[in-house]
Amino acid sequence: MQKLGMQTIKFDVTPTITSTACIVGPKESDGPLASYFDKCLDDEFWGEETWEKAESKIIKETVSLAVAKSKIASQEIDYCFAGDLLNQCISSSFGLRELNIPFFGVFGACSTFVESMCLGSVFIDGGGAQNVLCATSSHFCSAEKQFRFPLELGNQRPPTSQWTVTGSGAAVLSKSGNGPYITHITPGKIVDLGIKDANNMGAAMAPAAVDTLLTHFKDTGRAPSYYDLILTGDLGHIGKEITIDMMKTHGYNIKSNYNDCGVLIFDKATQDTHSGGSGCACCGTVFSGYVFQQLQQKKVQKVLLIATGALTNATSAQQGESIPGIAHAVSIEL
Amino acid sequence: MQKLGMQTIKFDVTPTITSTACIVGPKESDGPLASYFDKCLDDEFWGEETWEKAESKIIKETVSLAVAKSKIASQEIDYCFAGDLLNQCISSSFGLRELNIPFFGVFGACSTFVESMCLGSVFIDGGGAQNVLCATSSHFCSAEKQFRFPLELGNQRPPTSQWTVTGSGAAVLSKSGNGPYITHITPGKIVDLGIKDANNMGAAMAPAAVDTLLTHFKDTGRAPSYYDLILTGDLGHIGKEITIDMMKTHGYNIKSNYNDCGVLIFDKATQDTHSGGSGCACCGTVFSGYVFQQLQQKKVQKVLLIATGALTNATSAQQGESIPGIAHAVSIEL
Repeated sequence: MQKLGMQTIKFDVTPTITSTACIVGPKESDGPLASYFDKCLDDEFWGEETWEKAESKIIKETVSLAVAKSKIASQEIDYCFAGDLLNQCISSSFGLRELNIPFFGVFGACSTFVESMCLGSVFIDGGGAQNVLCATSSHFCSAEKQFRFPLELGNQRPPTSQWTVTGSGAAVLSKSGNGPYITHITPGKIVDLGIKDANNMGAAMAPAAVDTLLTHFKDTGRAPSYYDLILTGDLGHIGKEITIDMMKTHGYNIKSNYNDCGVLIFDKATQDTHSGGSGCACCGTVFSGYVFQQLQQKKVQKVLLIATGALTNATSAQQGESIPGIAHAVSIEL
Repeated sequence: MQKLGMQTIKFDVTPTITSTACIVGPKESDGPLASYFDKCLDDEFWGEETWEKAESKIIKETVSLAVAKSKIASQEIDYCFAGDLLNQCISSSFGLRELNIPFFGVFGACSTFVESMCLGSVFIDGGGAQNVLCATSSHFCSAEKQFRFPLELGNQRPPTSQWTVTGSGAAVLSKSGNGPYITHITPGKIVDLGIKDANNMGAAMAPAAVDTLLTHFKDTGRAPSYYDLILTGDLGHIGKEITIDMMKTHGYNIKSNYNDCGVLIFDKATQDTHSGGSGCACCGTVFSGYVFQQLQQKKVQKVLLIATGALTNATSAQQGESIPGIAHAVSIEL
C-alpha cells in the first residue's frame, strides 16, 4: 500500500469484497429497499427478551450469513472488525462472542462499518490476513432508549430527527477474488463545528463528510465525476442538502451522482421518518444489500462510500458539549 | 508482515516505540510507581467541571506530551488510534477533536491500549503510515458512576473489586527508529466462561489472557522464558493468581517472569484498592511510564504486554448476561 497525500491509502493488493449480508427490522422491511435485504424481520425483538439481545442476535445471524455466502470456512477468516452504537459496543461483543475469530472492537459511531472496512483492508493489503470480517449493527429501540428518551414516553420527534435503522450489515473481504475491489481508503479527522442539537445529527456530521470528501479528491486527484455513486452513510435529507451546499462552496458539484443511505432506506412521504435513516446499520445494510447488488450487476462500477459518525453520548449532551463528527471513506471499484 | 499460526502477526518493518507519555490522578500519584509518570495530578477534576471533561483533558494533554517527546511534528503523524471506557468513547473523541490527525476509534475496553498498538503497527509495517499515535484513558470517578454506583452513595467495595486507574497513556510508533521494537502481535478472541460478578473483573478476564498467552506461545514457538517480563494489563491480584494457575494446568510455569499492571500500580497494603488497579489507563500508564523506562534502561529487553478487556456494560449486567473478556498481546523487544 501507499500513502497518497495527507490521509488516503492506495492499495496494491486491492481487497475483494467477497460477500455481504444484511438483516433489517420491520420498518426497514416496509421501505423502498426491502427487496435487497437478505432477511426482513417482522418484529423488533426477534424472539429475544430485550432490544439489546435482539440487536446482538441480528448481528450474529448477519455475520453468520455473510460467512456462509462467502463460502470461506470461518477458521479461514483471520480477524473480525466490528462495533456498534450501544454503550461499550455490547451488541457486537455479545453477538460475536461465540464466533471464535480474533476480534478488534471498533468505535466510529455510525461510521463503524466503513472504519472496519478500512482497518480490514489494511490488514489484507499488508499481508497480515487473507480474509477478514467487517460488521456493525444498530437498533431503533435500543438506540432511542440509550441516546434520547424511553420509547414508552412516546415523545414527539422534531422534523430534523432521524430514525435509527434496526439491522446489521456485514462484509467478508479477501486477498484474492474478482472484486468489487477496495482500491483506496480516506480515514477522516474529527470535525466539530459546534452543533449541539442531538436531534439534528445530519447537520452535526455533514461537515465531517465534506472534510473527508475534499481530502479524498485532493489526495487522489480524482473529481467527483470519477464515481458513478458517491454515497454517505446516514446524513439523512437535511445532512445531504448541507453536504451538497458545502461542497458547492468549495467548487464541487456533486448533486448528480451523490446520495445518502439514510435518504434511500425509508420513504419520506409515507414512513414518518422525518429526516431519514441513521445508525451504524443504515450504511451497513444499504451498502450490503442495495449497493452491493448494484455493483454485482454492474449497474454502478465506481462507488465512494463515506460513512459518518456523531461522536457524542447522552452525558456529553447534558454537559453542554457540541457534537463532533467523523467520516471515513472507502473507494470501491469493479 | 507475515501471519504466524492462527492469530499472530510477525512484522518485517518492526515499528519502533518512539515515545510514550502518561499522566495520572492523585491515587496513582501516591502509589509505588509515582516517580515513573510524567505528571501526577493532585485532584480528580484538574480544573474542569466534570469528571468526563477532566478525563478528556487528561488524554488530550498526554497525547500532546507524547507527540512533543517524539520530536515528530504532529502533521507527520499519519493516524491516531484511541478509545476509552466511557459510553461511546467520549473521552477520546472530545479530548482529541482538535488534534487534526485522522482518527480511528477503538473499543477494546481495558485492552484498548494494546489493541491500538496492534492496529497502528499493522499500518506502519504495511506501508500505510510512517508514524501513528496510540492512546487511551480511564478515570475512577467517571467509570464508577457509569459502570457501578454513584460515588456519593459511598457503597462498600467487595474484596474482589478493582480500582479504576485515573490517567492516560499514549505512545508514538514510527517506521524508523532504534527501538524498542514491536516484533509480533497476537490479537485475541472473545472468551466468556460465564463469570457474572461485575465486581470481579479479574476472574472474568483471566481466561482471555490465558487463551491469548497460549496462542502466542504456540504461534511463535516461544516459551514463556523467552521474555524478561510477561505483563498483563489489569487482572489485579485475583486475576493474576487465576492466570498463573490456569497457565500451570496447561503446562506453563510463568510465575517467575509474570506480573500485572494492576498489581504494580497500587500498594495493596496501604492504598485500600483491594484486588488492584484496572481500567484502560492501568496498562496505558504502567507501560508508558514504568515499563518503557525499564526498556530504555535495558533493565528488561523482551516484554510481552497483554492488555485484557471486559466487554460488558451496566445494561448487560442488569439483563443477567455474563462478562465476555478479550486479551490482545504485543511483543516488544530491544
